[in-house]
Amino acid sequence: MTTIQDVAKHAGVGAATVSRVLSGNGYVKQTTRERVLRSIEELNYTPNEMARNLFHGKSGIVAVIIPELAHPFFSEMVSAIEVELCNLGYQTMVCNTFYEKNYELRYLEMLKRQRVDGIIFGAHTSLAAEMYQELRRPVIGLDRRLADTIPLVAADHVAGGRMAAEELIRSGCRNVAQFGGVDDNVSTPARHRHYVFRRVVEENGLTCHSYPKQPNYSAYNTYQEAAARLFAEHPDVDGIFGTDLYAAACLQYALSHGIRVPQDVKIVAYDGTHMTRFLDPDMTTICQPIEKLANESVRLITELIKGNEISEREIILPVRLRRGNTTTGNAAAESTEAAGTVTQLQQ
Amino acid sequence: MTTIQDVAKHAGVGAATVSRVLSGNGYVKQTTRERVLRSIEELNYTPNEMARNLFHGKSGIVAVIIPELAHPFFSEMVSAIEVELCNLGYQTMVCNTFYEKNYELRYLEMLKRQRVDGIIFGAHTSLAAEMYQELRRPVIGLDRRLADTIPLVAADHVAGGRMAAEELIRSGCRNVAQFGGVDDNVSTPARHRHYVFRRVVEENGLTCHSYPKQPNYSAYNTYQEAAARLFAEHPDVDGIFGTDLYAAACLQYALSHGIRVPQDVKIVAYDGTHMTRFLDPDMTTICQPIEKLANESVRLITELIKGNEISEREIILPVRLRRGNTTTGNAAAESTEAAGTVTQLQQ
Repeated sequence: MTTIQDVAKHAGVGAATVSRVLSGNGYVKQTTRERVLRSIEELNYTPNEMARNLFHGKSGIVAVIIPELAHPFFSEMVSAIEVELCNLGYQTMVCNTFYEKNYELRYLEMLKRQRVDGIIFGAHTSLAAEMYQELRRPVIGLDRRLADTIPLVAADHVAGGRMAAEELIRSGCRNVAQFGGVDDNVSTPARHRHYVFRRVVEENGLTCHSYPKQPNYSAYNTYQEAAARLFAEHPDVDGIFGTDLYAAACLQYALSHGIRVPQDVKIVAYDGTHMTRFLDPDMTTICQPIEKLANESVRLITELIKGNEISEREIILPVRLRRGNTTTGNAAAESTEAAGTVTQLQQ
Repeated sequence: MTTIQDVAKHAGVGAATVSRVLSGNGYVKQTTRERVLRSIEELNYTPNEMARNLFHGKSGIVAVIIPELAHPFFSEMVSAIEVELCNLGYQTMVCNTFYEKNYELRYLEMLKRQRVDGIIFGAHTSLAAEMYQELRRPVIGLDRRLADTIPLVAADHVAGGRMAAEELIRSGCRNVAQFGGVDDNVSTPARHRHYVFRRVVEENGLTCHSYPKQPNYSAYNTYQEAAARLFAEHPDVDGIFGTDLYAAACLQYALSHGIRVPQDVKIVAYDGTHMTRFLDPDMTTICQPIEKLANESVRLITELIKGNEISEREIILPVRLRRGNTTTGNAAAESTEAAGTVTQLQQ
């Protein structure tokens, strides 16, 4: 195997010069640079990426911390992040926290010891923000507000909650239920959609029941049990709002119990993952901009890794209403897309 | 920040001794070891994982190469692999090939330069096995036969194909269709299920139409289009076999076109991902042992990384029929689980 010394000898220079050529750091005379590059090519030398990265203090790896990779929302998100990172020459390390603080702690310990260039953090746990700052490397929050100093990328959940409420109101619902808005102990922007949802439906004279969200995709039964409990406790419910999985479980429960959708009960899902495309009737869904969330997260983290300043403190991306056949709203002119906002860093 | 030199000085030993204590390699007197460990604790020293791994020539990272992380089967699989690897102290790097040889080549180049300890390979592309051997590090094939020298972990697709065929035969089908069994140009054990399916149904006097599989979860429309094409070309089809996504798309097409399931058409899905649990009627499914596939893959790759010999050349794990309401087979005594086999390495 060819080493950097072989290249140096072949080119008639020192190994440090070859290093400078490879890293692009430090002055090397143009003719020398060309001689080194020719030697690299002739000897078919592949620099050891790790050695090169140690030289730069970089590993080329970005860690993505999420609750559960198997969950459709996170699998689509991480897949999109991986593509973006790969296109920029980075590799993606994935960490499942399973909604457990202990897992999160364990990853933080691993990441402290392991060299990763940056972290995209999207887990739903609640460690103190200081712990991320201790890592002393770039971190961004994906749908998770960690600290004022850590940039946030999220969907416009406030608009999303309002759009869901308005769609059920337009569809004539009087007595609605949502999964979320109670027992949320993590500061995720996502919970705001549930506060807004409740406020908007109540301002319009509807009754609103809020059920706790216990996301755990591995135990898919929890969704079915939650749906069964809702229909048992509120057989007169006529409108439901929840993530794709809660919405799908409610649709399944309704159809298998002779409850007609949308005639008897209307459903609005939230997330817009592909799984909603396989349901019948076609699910009305508030779609998160998964690809844009991935793109912006990757853009910010790679800028920070390169040592560049970024001016954005919060990037809030618009959501979109995709109307299917689980609701009956049909106002033609309503806005289906919120504007999205970018909050600049206070200088 | 505390360095290894600080620890050495504090304990009154050389840095090499601290290294030996940390790595567990080489002799260190028990009293010295205890003194070093006490110094590590008192100084709150966290060894730099990368430096330690360079010392061992290990990064602690395993790469998992799959076609598409967003696909429910692969997201559940990689999630399970990540948990297993994490429990053994490894971190998981994920690589999407998107069924593209170019992506696969790119990852192989990245992995050649990047230090990863081993590779779990489950992509559906067709590079020559030599390219993996060139990497000179442990590789195992997950549902993908790379070379005689590379261990394989896969589900018992032969049994799975037979079970699907028998379930449709028992349900009284006469004219069935499957997605798969044509245009398969990659040597994946999975394709055998389609050859077996066709053989078994034809031996029993049924007609069988095989449609090409074009997996691409990002373009979920392809599934709906495939379902529409099947029903247009064979309106008299009364039994369908395909992966969860093809099965779900066919169920959706049938229900939204007044075709009754299971009365008019029976459906058997293959994979058994959680998404099938959210459908109505409940989908009859051949379930792959996703967790066991993950466990065995991780067991083999970590043994190889540790330099241990493994005797297994192929581990074929049993699949299971989970009967839902999309078929009407109801034989009580049939075997629902194949035995699974382990082929030992020829010594």
